[in-house]
Amino acid sequence: MRDQKIPGHNRWHPAVPPADSVRPGDEFRMECREWTDCQIGNNNSANDVRDVNLKLAHMLSGPIRIEGAEPGDLLIVDILDLGPVPQHVGDAAGEGWGYTGVFAKVNGGSFLTDYYPDAVKAIWDFHGQQATSRHLPGVRYTGITHPGLFGTAPSQELLERWNRREQALIDTNPDRVPPLALPPEPDGALAGHAHGSDADRVAREGARTVPAREHGGNQDIKNFSRGSRVFVPVFVDGANLSVGDLHFSQGDGEITFCGAIEMGGFIDFHVDLIKGGMEKYGIMTNPVFMPGNVEPRYSEFMSFVGISVDPDDDTNLYMDATQAYKCACLNAIEYLKRWGYSGEQGYLILGSAPVEGRISGIVDIPNACCTLYLPTAIFDFDIRPTKDGPRSANRGACAVTS
Amino acid sequence: MRDQKIPGHNRWHPAVPPADSVRPGDEFRMECREWTDCQIGNNNSANDVRDVNLKLAHMLSGPIRIEGAEPGDLLIVDILDLGPVPQHVGDAAGEGWGYTGVFAKVNGGSFLTDYYPDAVKAIWDFHGQQATSRHLPGVRYTGITHPGLFGTAPSQELLERWNRREQALIDTNPDRVPPLALPPEPDGALAGHAHGSDADRVAREGARTVPAREHGGNQDIKNFSRGSRVFVPVFVDGANLSVGDLHFSQGDGEITFCGAIEMGGFIDFHVDLIKGGMEKYGIMTNPVFMPGNVEPRYSEFMSFVGISVDPDDDTNLYMDATQAYKCACLNAIEYLKRWGYSGEQGYLILGSAPVEGRISGIVDIPNACCTLYLPTAIFDFDIRPTKDGPRSANRGACAVTS
Amino acid sequence: MRDQKIPGHNRWHPAVPPADSVRPGDEFRMECREWTDCQIGNNNSANDVRDVNLKLAHMLSGPIRIEGAEPGDLLIVDILDLGPVPQHVGDAAGEGWGYTGVFAKVNGGSFLTDYYPDAVKAIWDFHGQQATSRHLPGVRYTGITHPGLFGTAPSQELLERWNRREQALIDTNPDRVPPLALPPEPDGALAGHAHGSDADRVAREGARTVPAREHGGNQDIKNFSRGSRVFVPVFVDGANLSVGDLHFSQGDGEITFCGAIEMGGFIDFHVDLIKGGMEKYGIMTNPVFMPGNVEPRYSEFMSFVGISVDPDDDTNLYMDATQAYKCACLNAIEYLKRWGYSGEQGYLILGSAPVEGRISGIVDIPNACCTLYLPTAIFDFDIRPTKDGPRSANRGACAVTS
Amino acid sequence: MRDQKIPGHNRWHPAVPPADSVRPGDEFRMECREWTDCQIGNNNSANDVRDVNLKLAHMLSGPIRIEGAEPGDLLIVDILDLGPVPQHVGDAAGEGWGYTGVFAKVNGGSFLTDYYPDAVKAIWDFHGQQATSRHLPGVRYTGITHPGLFGTAPSQELLERWNRREQALIDTNPDRVPPLALPPEPDGALAGHAHGSDADRVAREGARTVPAREHGGNQDIKNFSRGSRVFVPVFVDGANLSVGDLHFSQGDGEITFCGAIEMGGFIDFHVDLIKGGMEKYGIMTNPVFMPGNVEPRYSEFMSFVGISVDPDDDTNLYMDATQAYKCACLNAIEYLKRWGYSGEQGYLILGSAPVEGRISGIVDIPNACCTLYLPTAIFDFDIRPTKDGPRSANRGACAVTS
Repeated sequence: MRDQKIPGHNRWHPAVPPADSVRPGDEFRMECREWTDCQIGNNNSANDVRDVNLKLAHMLSGPIRIEGAEPGDLLIVDILDLGPVPQHVGDAAGEGWGYTGVFAKVNGGSFLTDYYPDAVKAIWDFHGQQATSRHLPGVRYTGITHPGLFGTAPSQELLERWNRREQALIDTNPDRVPPLALPPEPDGALAGHAHGSDADRVAREGARTVPAREHGGNQDIKNFSRGSRVFVPVFVDGANLSVGDLHFSQGDGEITFCGAIEMGGFIDFHVDLIKGGMEKYGIMTNPVFMPGNVEPRYSEFMSFVGISVDPDDDTNLYMDATQAYKCACLNAIEYLKRWGYSGEQGYLILGSAPVEGRISGIVDIPNACCTLYLPTAIFDFDIRPTKDGPRSANRGACAVTS
Repeated sequence: MRDQKIPGHNRWHPAVPPADSVRPGDEFRMECREWTDCQIGNNNSANDVRDVNLKLAHMLSGPIRIEGAEPGDLLIVDILDLGPVPQHVGDAAGEGWGYTGVFAKVNGGSFLTDYYPDAVKAIWDFHGQQATSRHLPGVRYTGITHPGLFGTAPSQELLERWNRREQALIDTNPDRVPPLALPPEPDGALAGHAHGSDADRVAREGARTVPAREHGGNQDIKNFSRGSRVFVPVFVDGANLSVGDLHFSQGDGEITFCGAIEMGGFIDFHVDLIKGGMEKYGIMTNPVFMPGNVEPRYSEFMSFVGISVDPDDDTNLYMDATQAYKCACLNAIEYLKRWGYSGEQGYLILGSAPVEGRISGIVDIPNACCTLYLPTAIFDFDIRPTKDGPRSANRGACAVTS
Repeated sequence: MRDQKIPGHNRWHPAVPPADSVRPGDEFRMECREWTDCQIGNNNSANDVRDVNLKLAHMLSGPIRIEGAEPGDLLIVDILDLGPVPQHVGDAAGEGWGYTGVFAKVNGGSFLTDYYPDAVKAIWDFHGQQATSRHLPGVRYTGITHPGLFGTAPSQELLERWNRREQALIDTNPDRVPPLALPPEPDGALAGHAHGSDADRVAREGARTVPAREHGGNQDIKNFSRGSRVFVPVFVDGANLSVGDLHFSQGDGEITFCGAIEMGGFIDFHVDLIKGGMEKYGIMTNPVFMPGNVEPRYSEFMSFVGISVDPDDDTNLYMDATQAYKCACLNAIEYLKRWGYSGEQGYLILGSAPVEGRISGIVDIPNACCTLYLPTAIFDFDIRPTKDGPRSANRGACAVTS
Repeated sequence: MRDQKIPGHNRWHPAVPPADSVRPGDEFRMECREWTDCQIGNNNSANDVRDVNLKLAHMLSGPIRIEGAEPGDLLIVDILDLGPVPQHVGDAAGEGWGYTGVFAKVNGGSFLTDYYPDAVKAIWDFHGQQATSRHLPGVRYTGITHPGLFGTAPSQELLERWNRREQALIDTNPDRVPPLALPPEPDGALAGHAHGSDADRVAREGARTVPAREHGGNQDIKNFSRGSRVFVPVFVDGANLSVGDLHFSQGDGEITFCGAIEMGGFIDFHVDLIKGGMEKYGIMTNPVFMPGNVEPRYSEFMSFVGISVDPDDDTNLYMDATQAYKCACLNAIEYLKRWGYSGEQGYLILGSAPVEGRISGIVDIPNACCTLYLPTAIFDFDIRPTKDGPRSANRGACAVTS
């Protein structure tokens, strides 16, 4: 078993040295801090979400060197187990609780930031594999626990491609709020065990951890859960696997951004190699994974449809799945409001509960059609429509800013 | 039981008169012609796909008037059963077979039209609930049978909104190939039982049936299958429900566009009403549905990830789920090619088999992350990666143009 | 496609000649009459169940000869599709409706005949894949449609073994009511296309169709549904496959005996052969099957436990799974009574709905432990326990005798 | 969180005092020793299984008193989480490994003891939620972790009923090997915190822990897993809940008896009360439970059928589900042997893997019909029949006696 070696790292760079080394066939544990490095507290104010320092994110554990791994190989990674901090040792997220937040538009933003520009938060209590929130009464569900973020180290060449293409995007609208992308940022950079000029390079050039990229990264795929197997491209000698941003649960899209149910915890891996696997299998970019077989079973859903029309000005966008999913989310929130939840509460539910987001039709010009599947069993009341109309009730309130 | 009243209709317009009338609580059958009105044949040439006349599509059955339905109501529609033509009476799609096609870029296009600009086709043979194709050896799966297209009639006001916003989109690039959207088109218009000036209005103003819109329309949601219940907004007196474009199976996105496994067949409905339901439940636009519980169970998937980076020029797009899903599809096809399928065959498989397309991460700036789930059990060989590399084989060929 | 050749047959005997012949690889349809040959009507009296002539059962379609099949082979049979009579042509069960009955103790009996000795009945209306009953309000479910009875013809030697061992059982208590087993019975025997002395032999020696035996027979396995594949031992040249007793739905055990939801209908088969397969795979007796993948999904169950103690006199039986399942059924009925159903109604629900019956513990001396899983979603009210106690209601009544 | 208070107890008796006390609404952890109290080792000999002292079993943790619980109430127990010993602290089962054994006929016996009279054993290694065994190569599966044994304390009156009826059974054949049931046995009895005359009574009168009874007990229901909720009758003040015999996995029936995959570990409970719930809900005997929703998903099975005929002498038993399941198990083992496993290995697989045992037909006189569902995905080779016959291979060997 391997534990996270503090100080960890929060930038992607080939110069971050391995924290430890394993061999193909090994099983080992990694412990992960909550992704903001514990800036968010178990309380009833969203001020900490509003004021969060995003330059510190995401706290990653690793890298772990896998002996014999070379560029062009596929790294096989099995998630044997995964969970919150097993023992109560302090007050950090993961120790019996987690949180879902919506960032303020001026500090991070979120998927529906034009509709919900203010920071809000819900605290979740863990009950074994289930979660409840005092800020979202009437909801209880089994989490699909997973790491939001994991990946191999980029090569210098790949890193430079990332920085180049993301800067080009930023340059199209450098003053946008929230920003289009995040360039390298020395402030707050953690370079793991790198020292001296290497540490400087990591801070100066290291790619931010926010997006998913060719090596994995912040994919936020909720189904990459216990029992999953993933085949990850290797870009540097030793592969250099890092992991973090553990989620107790998440809805497809992680639409709240701050985000899922966030926690610290542990993850148990088994690793192996397919030599030359990238070319053999045509997996030249982006990992391929096989989900585990223990996701919670739901068999009944309310499914909300969205199309690629901007509802504010009735503008038609062309085959825009992002807009279509946005509309599906807004439609779902509108429905939830009829049962007594505030819009912000509905938003927090969609970001954290095991909802599925699907691209249903992507060719029927001009309208992409996306669907959001909300399991009815997560509510302790019957949320299906009847002729009598919805039974509204006092559903409390989420945490807001002061 | 009600049968389709020829000539059917292929434009949306409130002036299309009801073909028949039912009452809330009724159960009835509708028979549907294949969506191109039988332009595609059971043969080994894709010429018919290449040359298809799209002005005739989609052949719809109905409308059915539901007594007592008024604007503002929700129409409850249950899909009791659904299938291909029960008895062999001719040579049309649905009579023991169906087809999946990719449109040519110059006549319709498709999701990956920049990569696959030519028309191709696969013929599927039905074996009860399963399908096989002589053009795609090694594949067999259970279909999730569903109507690609259904909806209530738009009000005149809603119709005018559609035409206005879609024309505005077209105007941004009126010469694009394929087009951004399709304006009303008198040529080929069928107005059902409308006559005289009404028929002229339908032909002149009627919205094309291609996209999904507020009333349902061509949603192409594969999970809207047997046993599903849908709540549809009502915009005109009598609701005027139409249905068509039956699919034996479809992959999420229907990426091939011509598309799914197309067939003629029957659909059995039960209808009911929630008076004033749109306001009661906040379902002001787009139907809400509850999927049935008899979809085929799969428990193992190869899941391909895509991010919103254009692979051709390494350009970064901002939170573009459409691009991310495109990359996931291309990654999946690249994988299938390693097993002996052509790219076109892989494309046809993804468009027709029960693959799931998910929006996994939609906030991690700048990259949307989408995933495509391919069930391993649809192949009669083991398609999982091993250290030995893929077992390529002769996988035949799909139908091409001459 | 092959249709049932009247007069069918209702005894197992190698001398029943094939009604038709197919080749390995063929697909064909068989039509089946309801198992009592239409003695039960769509009405509100159980008199027909009470007075049923069981000597006429079960009406079987076939046999179908499979060319090239020889003793020692395994016959591969795929159920491609299966359903009630597609068109309304009369008033027989299967034409839009079916029934579940409990036999009277004096004429057939049932699993709980000591508790429910009188004939009762419920009529079910079909709504696509779902069923409701005017005799069981509050219940609606998707059927797992399947043939209760199917099998290959026995060899003369196997037939004689059956008759010998079953007579030996009868001889242990020849006057028991209901009987322990049923000997050959010329009265009411149908020998299919056999004539003269062959027909006499079939009537005189033919095994009754009631039980499951080495060749398949009346297995009443609810999960042998659409998409299933079965490997059946072959005992005579040509295999001679017969089928009947179609069920729209059934609970594990078919505890009501008259039984499941009974109907006439059609079944589509594909057949193939594994030459010498019995020895190759060690399948010397009893078919082996692979269930299809379209059973209805349920994810929540009330599960009732039973142990092998007779509740009437508190007698302990040794590892008796039959008694344990009987107790689980009685416990479930007791629970259903608290919600307003009569015991007879509860019994009819358990016999027909998609309940699962499991052998959970079979070694913990002296008590076998069986469990009955009742899906909560089949009820239109919430049947889970709460602190408030059950909400009893008027649940109508089932059909009884006059 | 509450930990097991040594010395625990291994007899059921109302005089065993509570080890601790909780209130309705509380969540707490109980730690459990492996059921034989660590008599079985991680080695390659089955001698320890052969020689096991069964008078020491089962080591139970508790009882836990629930404040306010009175006879007639229903105790609600939620299994929040459950697993093997989290940290490696010694060499006991549960610390990274577990075992499945078959008892010798002369010391315990098993379901197929007439066919497999000798002790054998397999050691399992845990990999997160999955298990593999060096004694059963080619097999790997996800465990459905559960407590084999749990229950409330019996009242004195209920205890006396148990002892009376079980002694009556024993008296029918007191010299049987293995025995029909086990009477109270002072030798090896642990009475928990009872002292003096109370401890003597527990030892003298205490019911053995082997069977399931009205209070729960050794039900060995594999689906009573994480997320399950159970409603347990209360027979004494405080309910006095005990638990033990944790299983990493088990096949329905636990046919090997020594048994499942045995381990020590932890279980996290939430408890609550329904006052007067036994009468309210008609749950007068045997708990009722609702399974959790995180059991591993399998979608393909080989299903083996058995009927109530003794294959050794072709004797027909009447509606004997125990015999029918025995035949289904023997048929499955025969099939596994064709792939290279020994009969003993096949037996160990069926006892421990997530196989389902169902009572399919229980009325078709004279033959009960039971089915055993073996998931194909637990094998790392394709175990489905083909025309080529099975691919036998060297499958190693299980641990035997010296």
